[in-house]
Amino acid sequence: MKAEIVSVGTEILLGEITDTNSSYLAGQLPLLGIDLYWVSTVGDNRNRIVEVLKRAWGRSDLILVTGGLGPTEDDLTRESIAQTLGEEMKVDAALEKWLRDFFASRRFAMPERNLKQATLIPSAQALPNPRGTAPGWWVERDGRILASMPGPPAEMQRMWQFEVLPRLRPRLTGEIILSRTLKNYGLGEATVDEMLSPLLSSTNPSIGIYAKPDGIHARITAKGKTREEVQPLLDEMEAKSRRILGKYVWGVDDETLEVVVGNLLKRRKLTLATMESCTGGLLASTITDVPGSSAYFKGGIVSYSNEAKTANGVDAALIDKYGAVSHEVAAAMATAVKTRLSADIGIGVTGVLGPDTLEGKPVGTVHIAVDAPGRSEVYPRNLNFPRLQAKRLATTAALFNLRAILLDMG
Amino acid sequence: MKAEIVSVGTEILLGEITDTNSSYLAGQLPLLGIDLYWVSTVGDNRNRIVEVLKRAWGRSDLILVTGGLGPTEDDLTRESIAQTLGEEMKVDAALEKWLRDFFASRRFAMPERNLKQATLIPSAQALPNPRGTAPGWWVERDGRILASMPGPPAEMQRMWQFEVLPRLRPRLTGEIILSRTLKNYGLGEATVDEMLSPLLSSTNPSIGIYAKPDGIHARITAKGKTREEVQPLLDEMEAKSRRILGKYVWGVDDETLEVVVGNLLKRRKLTLATMESCTGGLLASTITDVPGSSAYFKGGIVSYSNEAKTANGVDAALIDKYGAVSHEVAAAMATAVKTRLSADIGIGVTGVLGPDTLEGKPVGTVHIAVDAPGRSEVYPRNLNFPRLQAKRLATTAALFNLRAILLDMG
Repeated sequence: MKAEIVSVGTEILLGEITDTNSSYLAGQLPLLGIDLYWVSTVGDNRNRIVEVLKRAWGRSDLILVTGGLGPTEDDLTRESIAQTLGEEMKVDAALEKWLRDFFASRRFAMPERNLKQATLIPSAQALPNPRGTAPGWWVERDGRILASMPGPPAEMQRMWQFEVLPRLRPRLTGEIILSRTLKNYGLGEATVDEMLSPLLSSTNPSIGIYAKPDGIHARITAKGKTREEVQPLLDEMEAKSRRILGKYVWGVDDETLEVVVGNLLKRRKLTLATMESCTGGLLASTITDVPGSSAYFKGGIVSYSNEAKTANGVDAALIDKYGAVSHEVAAAMATAVKTRLSADIGIGVTGVLGPDTLEGKPVGTVHIAVDAPGRSEVYPRNLNFPRLQAKRLATTAALFNLRAILLDMG
Repeated sequence: MKAEIVSVGTEILLGEITDTNSSYLAGQLPLLGIDLYWVSTVGDNRNRIVEVLKRAWGRSDLILVTGGLGPTEDDLTRESIAQTLGEEMKVDAALEKWLRDFFASRRFAMPERNLKQATLIPSAQALPNPRGTAPGWWVERDGRILASMPGPPAEMQRMWQFEVLPRLRPRLTGEIILSRTLKNYGLGEATVDEMLSPLLSSTNPSIGIYAKPDGIHARITAKGKTREEVQPLLDEMEAKSRRILGKYVWGVDDETLEVVVGNLLKRRKLTLATMESCTGGLLASTITDVPGSSAYFKGGIVSYSNEAKTANGVDAALIDKYGAVSHEVAAAMATAVKTRLSADIGIGVTGVLGPDTLEGKPVGTVHIAVDAPGRSEVYPRNLNFPRLQAKRLATTAALFNLRAILLDMG
């Protein structure tokens, strides 16, 4: 099935909003075995919308239209579809009732201009939109399908999942494509590429390597007639990759390091505390992004001054001797915060992120310490990157180091 | 000048990457008075690229092409432009030398397939690319301009700014559009809309209102022949808006609250410390996103357990009496951390972000305290939003409250 996306909205052409709907839909279609050939963006201009729709109707089996379903004069998608197909728009009694009820339930009188949101053409069915006032259209004629969805991403995505997908599935015949991502940390992109090179020539499943902020992703992609046929291909390639990459693989697909670490802490019934300087609170904030993290995270110190370090149990003599950015002080920070907040494990992070060097240490110098029962480690890192990226990388490194130690605890 | 963007790449159609180049370029064109009419995305298929380019060449004055300039067989943009214009690609000696030097400087032998990156057609000039191996093409013929740039955003943006823009400017004749954004906090979207309603009917400058994560943005847009003509229109509308919105306006354009607050602290020579529970470190992390923040930020406590609160000077009896999520404990947190880290100002943030209620207090309850010289305030907030959004909103609220107090200090 040959598909095309048409995205309607002058605000996209003015660069005021980014069209995330097209990339969302583009990511959905391979899973259905639908080939996407074109994406077009057009402004709120009836002639140009009709021109784009006519071309799409002439060359594609499935046309996904987003945007332009609002109540204002600028919203011209319905009118343009009707004109493209030579059909007439009429107010649908059921839609009108739904729309009036929608406004009544919010104690508003419905502005009359909203009435055009209750229209249909003979080839169209309405697609309900519980998140807004714009129902979509499902148009089927001449062996073609056109689905028109609202522009706000939350409304569009719900309509896609609950209205368009179920109508589309029974009409599909092609192959489906599934993918699975193995997330790695601690290896460079070229190293992962080299390690996985025996697998890279495989075409189904195939494997691709991508550098991402949380490490190197190996994405396995496979296709076939059904999910049942494709899953084993993914499983087999995942097993082969894991045999090669070993403990560097920390997660799959949407998993995050903070969730992986949180689960390990819960399973081992261990609590955690952090003292961080250069990451400035990002480590604690990342850990507490996980709902329920208060079960294992006791708290943290953002020791952005030496005063904050010594007030929380780091020996001032140690800072004098080795400097705040040192192996020794990182270790002392981990131990001090562990003791201070009665946690089982302490993490200490200290470093120089610039703009200037500190204590003669170059920008990018970072020490990460983990003080866990029966084991203390300090890891040196060189993270000479722009400030926010370096904060993120140091946070990821700290979580990855903690994970390694938790795994070794068996 | 009528413009069109053509974005080339199968990985965009597969949803593997989002096309941020088109929205970047779309945002640049209004500033030049160039009207963008169409954006098209097409895969790495020569027939389809040529079809899209022929249509663009037929209807647009300026065609911006991104992607497809790599060395592989899938990279077909050069070949497609040549075919569209009926011209022949030839290796350019100067480009070839540059490319071979590029590889030599990295101690690599140049793979022969890279040679196609050194080709030109008679109507094309090369656009240098210091960030990669793909030079762009500037094509000028038949009163039309086509600029072909590489797909990686860092390479594309540099080439746009340093190579395409300077060639484009002398050819521009149209009006330019400039905009300025006033960022507000503490008022709802509808309230801002109502307050600014006397200004909303103005068309040049015009004003639009948008809800964003850091508050409500009022964007002023104006057009005219030159920057000198447009700037005063923006200035005048900004002044009118500020007279209405007053202290709710906290920043302009790219300013962030953390930078605004940091500048106020530096100007007043005051230092800051934070104790936060529900924001989990995000407040400290946001403050330390600013380079040089160590000049005024002493540090923070992430008091994710009562233990972490009492270990840092919050009276346990207060927690017993009022609960950890209370006006009283927020105030005690601000005072305790201010004392503990010898700062001039302390901020305390405590709240319930769920998933469960706490101490019988509903999810979304947040108290923000600021303890400043001569003035202490506690602000109650209701932030019943998804976890990460609520953390972000509470952080924004705390910074905004701090700003208000710093401003009052005169």
